[in-house]
Amino acid sequence: MAKMLPSLLLLLLALLPAAARADDGYRLWLRYDPIESPQRALYSRAASELVVEGDSTTIAAARSELVRGLSGLLGRPQPVAQRVDRDGAILLARRAVPTGEEGYVIRSTRVNGHAATLIAANGDRGLLYGAFAYLRLLQTRRPVAHLAIADAPKLGLRLLDHWDNPDRSVERGYAGQSLWDWQKLPGWVEPRYTDYARANASIGINGAVLNNVNAQADILTAPWLAKVKALADTFRPWGIRVYLSARFTAPMELGGLKTADPLDPQVRAWWKAKADEIYRLVPDFGGFLVKANSEGQPGPQDYHRSHADGANMLAEALAPHGGTVFWRAFVYAAAADKDRAKQAYEEFTPLDGKFAPNVVLQVKNGPIDFQPREPFHPLFGAMPKTPLAIEVQVTKEYLGFATHLAYLGTMWEEVLKSDTYRPRAGTPVAKTVTAMAGVANVGSDRNWTGSQFDQANWYAFGRLAWGPLGSADAIAEEWTRMTWGNDPRLVQRIGAMMASSRQAVVDYMTPLGLHHLMGTGHHYGPAPWVGNLERPDWNPTYYHRADANGIGFDRTATGSNAVAQYAPEVAARFASLDTVPDDYLLWFHHVPWDYRLHGVATVWETLLSHYDRGVARVALYEQDWAALQGRVEPERHAEVTAFLRIQHREARWWRDASIAYFQSVSKRPLPPGTAPPAHDLAWYEAQTFTHVPGH
Amino acid sequence: MAKMLPSLLLLLLALLPAAARADDGYRLWLRYDPIESPQRALYSRAASELVVEGDSTTIAAARSELVRGLSGLLGRPQPVAQRVDRDGAILLARRAVPTGEEGYVIRSTRVNGHAATLIAANGDRGLLYGAFAYLRLLQTRRPVAHLAIADAPKLGLRLLDHWDNPDRSVERGYAGQSLWDWQKLPGWVEPRYTDYARANASIGINGAVLNNVNAQADILTAPWLAKVKALADTFRPWGIRVYLSARFTAPMELGGLKTADPLDPQVRAWWKAKADEIYRLVPDFGGFLVKANSEGQPGPQDYHRSHADGANMLAEALAPHGGTVFWRAFVYAAAADKDRAKQAYEEFTPLDGKFAPNVVLQVKNGPIDFQPREPFHPLFGAMPKTPLAIEVQVTKEYLGFATHLAYLGTMWEEVLKSDTYRPRAGTPVAKTVTAMAGVANVGSDRNWTGSQFDQANWYAFGRLAWGPLGSADAIAEEWTRMTWGNDPRLVQRIGAMMASSRQAVVDYMTPLGLHHLMGTGHHYGPAPWVGNLERPDWNPTYYHRADANGIGFDRTATGSNAVAQYAPEVAARFASLDTVPDDYLLWFHHVPWDYRLHGVATVWETLLSHYDRGVARVALYEQDWAALQGRVEPERHAEVTAFLRIQHREARWWRDASIAYFQSVSKRPLPPGTAPPAHDLAWYEAQTFTHVPGH
Repeated sequence: MAKMLPSLLLLLLALLPAAARADDGYRLWLRYDPIESPQRALYSRAASELVVEGDSTTIAAARSELVRGLSGLLGRPQPVAQRVDRDGAILLARRAVPTGEEGYVIRSTRVNGHAATLIAANGDRGLLYGAFAYLRLLQTRRPVAHLAIADAPKLGLRLLDHWDNPDRSVERGYAGQSLWDWQKLPGWVEPRYTDYARANASIGINGAVLNNVNAQADILTAPWLAKVKALADTFRPWGIRVYLSARFTAPMELGGLKTADPLDPQVRAWWKAKADEIYRLVPDFGGFLVKANSEGQPGPQDYHRSHADGANMLAEALAPHGGTVFWRAFVYAAAADKDRAKQAYEEFTPLDGKFAPNVVLQVKNGPIDFQPREPFHPLFGAMPKTPLAIEVQVTKEYLGFATHLAYLGTMWEEVLKSDTYRPRAGTPVAKTVTAMAGVANVGSDRNWTGSQFDQANWYAFGRLAWGPLGSADAIAEEWTRMTWGNDPRLVQRIGAMMASSRQAVVDYMTPLGLHHLMGTGHHYGPAPWVGNLERPDWNPTYYHRADANGIGFDRTATGSNAVAQYAPEVAARFASLDTVPDDYLLWFHHVPWDYRLHGVATVWETLLSHYDRGVARVALYEQDWAALQGRVEPERHAEVTAFLRIQHREARWWRDASIAYFQSVSKRPLPPGTAPPAHDLAWYEAQTFTHVPGH
Repeated sequence: MAKMLPSLLLLLLALLPAAARADDGYRLWLRYDPIESPQRALYSRAASELVVEGDSTTIAAARSELVRGLSGLLGRPQPVAQRVDRDGAILLARRAVPTGEEGYVIRSTRVNGHAATLIAANGDRGLLYGAFAYLRLLQTRRPVAHLAIADAPKLGLRLLDHWDNPDRSVERGYAGQSLWDWQKLPGWVEPRYTDYARANASIGINGAVLNNVNAQADILTAPWLAKVKALADTFRPWGIRVYLSARFTAPMELGGLKTADPLDPQVRAWWKAKADEIYRLVPDFGGFLVKANSEGQPGPQDYHRSHADGANMLAEALAPHGGTVFWRAFVYAAAADKDRAKQAYEEFTPLDGKFAPNVVLQVKNGPIDFQPREPFHPLFGAMPKTPLAIEVQVTKEYLGFATHLAYLGTMWEEVLKSDTYRPRAGTPVAKTVTAMAGVANVGSDRNWTGSQFDQANWYAFGRLAWGPLGSADAIAEEWTRMTWGNDPRLVQRIGAMMASSRQAVVDYMTPLGLHHLMGTGHHYGPAPWVGNLERPDWNPTYYHRADANGIGFDRTATGSNAVAQYAPEVAARFASLDTVPDDYLLWFHHVPWDYRLHGVATVWETLLSHYDRGVARVALYEQDWAALQGRVEPERHAEVTAFLRIQHREARWWRDASIAYFQSVSKRPLPPGTAPPAHDLAWYEAQTFTHVPGH
C-alpha cells in the first residue's frame, strides 16, 4: 500500500484538472506541500497530535492553520486531541511567558508525562504568531527537537497601507485592482479576504489601512462603513485591525460644515461623533491615517493651524476608544522649495512634544520619495518626544513596477540599520521608531502582487516590521524555502539573485545617489531630460543638476545644506567628499564630470560602469533562472522567465536613455568598450506612454 | 487496488492545498471531472484510443482538448494512437462532409475494421468544434453509440465585443478589470488568454473585438499593435480572429491629418496604410468595429458624409485582406429627437444597398438600449441589401450587474424568434442576420464573469450565435449539466430558476414594457423620478411619461408612430390595445391608470402585481438554492447564496422605489394586500451611489 502511494499520487495528480493543478502563486509562502522523506517522518513524530486550549476566534484561526499546515506538510490528516496523551504532542495554550502581549515561546517540554512541543503566549495573537512560527520551522526544514524559542515583535504597530480607491483602482498599484470588491460588500465577503488575513498574520502584520492616503470622504459614510465593518470582522480573528485614511475636509463634504478648522468646536464634535459611529461598528478600529497639506490634500494649514493641531483633533476623537492617528510627514509646500528634501524636517521638528500621545508621525524611509536608494530620513532620531513610524513602499513605483525583480528587504535593512547618532552613536533608525508601515503591493491579480517575486517584498516587510534589525538575506532564504522549495541549489541561486537585485536596479536606473529621474506622472521608464514642469521640484533636472561642468545636488553647506539636518557625525560623513559613500555621492554633492572617485575612475566613467553593471546583472539573472528549469513548476518558471526578459529590455532602455542624455550634457566621449545607446537621445525623448497602470 | 482507489482519492484530495481544491468557477463549463460509474466505463469503451490526423495548430488544439477532456472525464490518461487499431477508437480527421467550412459530423462508423467514432470536418475549425461537441456529449451524459450528428453554424461571424479600455477598465464591466494586461503585453502572455480562447472555441465564438467601441486611437499605434498581435497569436489556434474598435478620427490623432473626412484621399490612404500595417502583424485580422456619430463619438457626419461613406472607406482598406467592417446602427442625434427609438431606422434604411459588400451593419436587439425587455429592432428585415449583425449585451448593465441571477438566453431567444414579416410571415429576426455580436461580460475576476451564473450568459450567447433558432432552455440545461452537474434534481431546479429569471428581473425593474428607469450614469438601481437631465431622452420620465392620468409611451399613430417602422402585420399587432402583448403595453401605448388589461385588472393594479411577483420569485430562488446545499461544492454554493440575498434586497428596493414614485404620480391607493414601500419617496430619491463599477 505504502509502496503504491507515489505512483497513485502521480496518477491522481495527472487526472486533476489543469487549472486546479497549475501553480499560479496564489498560495504565497503558505504552500504546505508534503515534505520529502525521510524528514517527513521525523516531523510527523513530533506532531503526533495537536492539542489546543481555548476557543476564541483567534485561537480557532491558529488551530485551523496548524491543522491545514501540518496535514499538508506531513501528508496525512493531522490528529487533534482534547488533551496531551501521547509523545510528540503539540500543545497550543496561553501561559504566562516573558514575551509581551504579542510574543510567543515554542519549547520542547513534557506535558502529562509525554514529550511535547509547547506553543505558548500571554495572548491569543501571540498564539497565532507562534502557530505560524512553528509551521515555518517545518516549511524551512529546521529541527524541531530541543526547541527553546522566544520571540516578540520589536514594533507594536505593523501596518499595510493600501492606496486603494473606492472605484477599485489602486494608486501605484501594479497587481490588478484593489482586493476590496466594494460594490459587492458587505453582501458578499470573498474567501480571498481571509487568505489575505492569513498571509498577513503569518508574518505578524497587525493592521491594514484600507484606503488611499489621497482619500475620498465617501469611506466615512454609513454605506461604506458597513463595508469596512465586513472586512474588519473577517480580519479580526487573524489579529488585524482596520484603519482608514481620513480626508481632512470630511466635516465639510459630509457634515455640511463651513470649515474643517481643527480648532472649531463643531469640527471637533463632528469627528468625535464620526469616531463614535465607527467604533459602534468596529470596536477594535485601529484609527486614522492622514496625508494633510501635501500634494494638494487639504489640511490644518489651510486654516493657519499646525500639523499638531490637526493630528491632535483626530487623536482626541479616537482616544476614548484606543485608536491611533498616523500623521504623515510626507509634505512639501505648494510653493517650490529650494530643496524639497529639507521640508519635512523643517516643518515637523519644531512640533516635537506637541502631539497627543496617540499620534504617530509616519516618516518615509528617505527624505524624497521611495527612490531606489535614498539616505535615511533626517527626522529619524530628531523627534525624541514623538512616536515615529517608518513608512516604506512595498509596491515598486520606482523600482520597475511588477515585472522587475527587485528584492526590497536589502533596501529596508540598509535604512533600518543606518546609525542616526541620535541621541548617540549606535542608534539605528530601527530604534527610533515604534511602528512600521508598508505601502501595500497586493491586488486582485491571482498571484496577489503582480509577480511571483514581489511576494517576497510583502513577506520581507512583515518580517522586518516584526524584527527591524533582522537580516534581509536570512528573510529572503526563509521566503525562498517556503515559496520555491528547499532544494539547496534553488535556495542558493534564488538567494543570490534576490540579494543583488535591488542594487542592480539602482545601477541601471539611478546610480551613485542620483534620484527622481523617472517618466513624468506615470513614473514608467527614464526621463532625466525633463525640466519643463510647472514646479521646479517635479523635474528630474532639479535633482541631477547635470550641466557641462558636472552633476549632482549640492546638499552641503555650499548648497542647500540639507546635510545639516543629520546628527553632526552623520552630517560630517556625508558632507565630505572623502567620506561620503559612493552610493550617496550625487545625492549630496555636485562634482565635475572629471572628478575621480577614490582617485581612480572619473564620475563619468563610474556612472557608465554602473549602468553596464546593472544591465549585465539582469542578463545573469536570466541565465540563472534558466538553469532552474525543472526545479520549479513550469507555470511559475515561465512567468518569471518572461518577466526577467522584460526587465532586461527595460534595464537596457534605462541605461541607454540615461547615457544618451547625460552624454548630451557632459559632452564626454564613451570610453572604449562602452556600447553606444541603441538610439539617439531624440528617440528616447520621443517615447510616450499612455494608460500606464497605477497612475 | 480498484477498491482502494475511492478512499485513496479522498485522502489525497484532503491533502491537496485548499486553494487548489476549492472550486471557484475558473474552469467554467469545461470542468471535465470524472464521470460517475457505471456510465464512465461505457464511455471509456467508446474512447479506447484517440487518433488525430493532421498537425495544424488548430488540430493540435483540438487534440489537446480531447486528451484533457477525456482523461478528466474518464478518470485515466487518454490513450493516443497513430492509427485506429482497436474497437472504440475516436478518429478526428478532415473529410469531405456536407457541413460547410466550420461545421462537423460525428458518426459511429468502422475504421480499419474497428468500431470507431469519426469526428470529421472540411476544415480545421470544424474539427475543433467537433471535438468540443463530442466532449459535450459526455459532459451532458448523452449516448455515444450510433451517433449520426451533423452540425454547422447558421451565422458565419460570431463575435464577442469587449468594451475594454487601454487602462484595463471595462465600460459596463462587472467582472473586475479587462482580461488584457496591456502593460505586460507582449512580453508576458498570460496562460489565462488561452483558457479564454478555449472557452470561446467550445461554444463556437470565432471573433473577439478587443477594445471598447468608445475607442481611443492608441490601440492603432505600433506599440499597441504589438500587444494585439500577441493576443491574436494566442487565439489563432482556437479559431478566433481579433478585431479592433477603430476611432474615426485616428488619421488626425495619429496621422496628423487635418481631417478625417472619409472622402479625403489622404484619409483613405492613411487607413489603407494602417490596415496594411495591421495585416503584416496579424494576417488573419478580422477587421474594425465602429461606433460613429453616436453619444459624442466622431464620425462621417462631422464631415457631412453618410454612414455608408464612412463604413465604405474602412471597408476599402480592409477588403484586399479579407477584413470586415462592423458599423454600429446604435446612433442617436446630438439634438434630442421626439422618439429616440426611431432614429436608427430613419438614418439607416435610406442607405440600404449603399454599403460595400464587406460591411456588416450591427443592430442592437431592440431600438433603445439593451433594456430588460424591448421589442425587436425594426431594422431587422428592413435592409434586405445589407448584411446585418444582431448585437446583444451579455454584460448585465441593465439587469442587475454581476449579482442578479438573470439568464439572458430566454431574452435572446425571444428576439431571435420574433417574426419580422419581412419579406413575409415566418421570417424571424434570426433569419435576417448574418452575424451575432455579444458585448462581453468577462473580466479578470477569478470566475471570469463576476458571478457563477453569469457564465451561463457567455455560454448561451455562443450557442445562440451558432444556432440562433435554438432553445434557450435546452442551452440552459446543457450549461447546467456541464457547470453544476448531472444530478437530476440539480438540473431540474437550476433549470427552473434560470428559465424564469429574466422575467423576474423585468417584473421587479420594468414590467409591462416600461424601460430606461435606472439610475443616471451608473445605471445602478431605480430612478424613475429623474426628469432634469440635459437631454430629454436621457430622462426616465421621457420614457414612462407617467402623469396623473396615465402611463406609457405612445408610439402609435397618435404619438411618435414608431410602430410604423415595423412590417404592417407587426405594426398592426403592436398598435392595437386589443392585440399588443402585455409585455410591450407601455412601450407602445400611453394608457390611463384605470385602463383594464383584458378587461380585468387595471394597469395600476397589474403594475403592482408584477413588482410583487418579481420580488417573490427571487425569494423563491433563495429557497430553491438553499435546498441544493450539499449537491454543489460549498464555495460556489456560498457565493450564489450571498448573491441571491443581494438580489432579493435590490429587487425589493426596485419594487419599493418604483411603487413609491408611481404612486406619487398616479395618486392611486395600494390595493389591500400590497405592502407599502419600506420608505417614502424622498428616501429613495436621496440615495446616491458613488464609484459604481463599469461607469
